[in-house]
Amino acid sequence: MNDSGILVVFSGPSGSGKGTVLARYFAAHPEAAFSVSATTRAPRPGEADGVNYHFVSRERFEEMIAQGEVLEYTQYNGNYYGSPAGPIREALEKGRDVVLEIEVEGAMQVRERFPEALLVFVLPPSFGELERRLTGRGTETPEQIAGRLAAARREIALAPRYDYLLVNDRVEEAAQKLGEIIGAAKCTPARNRELLEGFLG
Amino acid sequence: MNDSGILVVFSGPSGSGKGTVLARYFAAHPEAAFSVSATTRAPRPGEADGVNYHFVSRERFEEMIAQGEVLEYTQYNGNYYGSPAGPIREALEKGRDVVLEIEVEGAMQVRERFPEALLVFVLPPSFGELERRLTGRGTETPEQIAGRLAAARREIALAPRYDYLLVNDRVEEAAQKLGEIIGAAKCTPARNRELLEGFLG
Repeated sequence: MNDSGILVVFSGPSGSGKGTVLARYFAAHPEAAFSVSATTRAPRPGEADGVNYHFVSRERFEEMIAQGEVLEYTQYNGNYYGSPAGPIREALEKGRDVVLEIEVEGAMQVRERFPEALLVFVLPPSFGELERRLTGRGTETPEQIAGRLAAARREIALAPRYDYLLVNDRVEEAAQKLGEIIGAAKCTPARNRELLEGFLG
Repeated sequence: MNDSGILVVFSGPSGSGKGTVLARYFAAHPEAAFSVSATTRAPRPGEADGVNYHFVSRERFEEMIAQGEVLEYTQYNGNYYGSPAGPIREALEKGRDVVLEIEVEGAMQVRERFPEALLVFVLPPSFGELERRLTGRGTETPEQIAGRLAAARREIALAPRYDYLLVNDRVEEAAQKLGEIIGAAKCTPARNRELLEGFLG
């Protein structure tokens, strides 16, 4: 009903399974675009430039910030991470929905700069289940897991500022629900001014 | 994610095909409830009390208004039409979504008394298509059709006050979209306070 795409911000704590939900969503929606973040950290083995991240120098990243070329950014462990604005705008103008998988503070920056963005927060079914998932990975120490749980609590505290919550109990259902949320967003009067003008003009 | 159902107000001009969309929606969602209106007009041949309408006397209807037993009402051709509040509240409390197929002024009354209601306006693909549909019925005079088109224009002028617009181009798609809109509405933070409290409490 509208030509321009929807900008979707997707956040959730470690262990919420947001990456898996997104993978399933994109499998069903090949027309949607995933925003590849830019970062100043070094590529890890197996990571490809432009696929996992756009790997850029610190100077380049700061130039992007200064010129308004990132939609949101943050620093973590001494490195910059951010969403390049150009490719996002281009995809939206072509009518593609664009998904940003970013942290809560980046999400709040997007909300300010792009009020029509759709903010979706993915939750595990319960805190106990989150703990089971993190423990079940078997890759982290109890201290690291405790740290992730504390971080999850801080992130979930900001979930009420999002437009929608998505409980990831079954991945298939969560991915379908994400599709419904994005589909519904295309039907608001604000996104269909031209259609209404066609009737009333 | 929430125990109580969604109150859905469904409006649209004559010829928009809203009845057909709803029929398809209910076929796919037998758990949802349709709110049967009360009216003071006499039953027509084939109409059954409690199915097409709750047929009540003028005295009874005015008593219902006085006691706050109708969620919204209007007068048309000297008769009252309204939505009985009791059955709606009961169904919502049981977790059933409830659909009211009502006119624009009734919809605005519901919005005031029940701000969390979801207002959906169904549109034909275009004004020309609406005219073709009304003419194609072959049951009305050109004057009657002109009257319906003028009424449609007045109704569509209020569509921007609705939460969602639904273009009924293909019935199947419109009914599915309605399901998505209702499904998405269940995922807002406001409707999931208990869930969030479970994480943060």
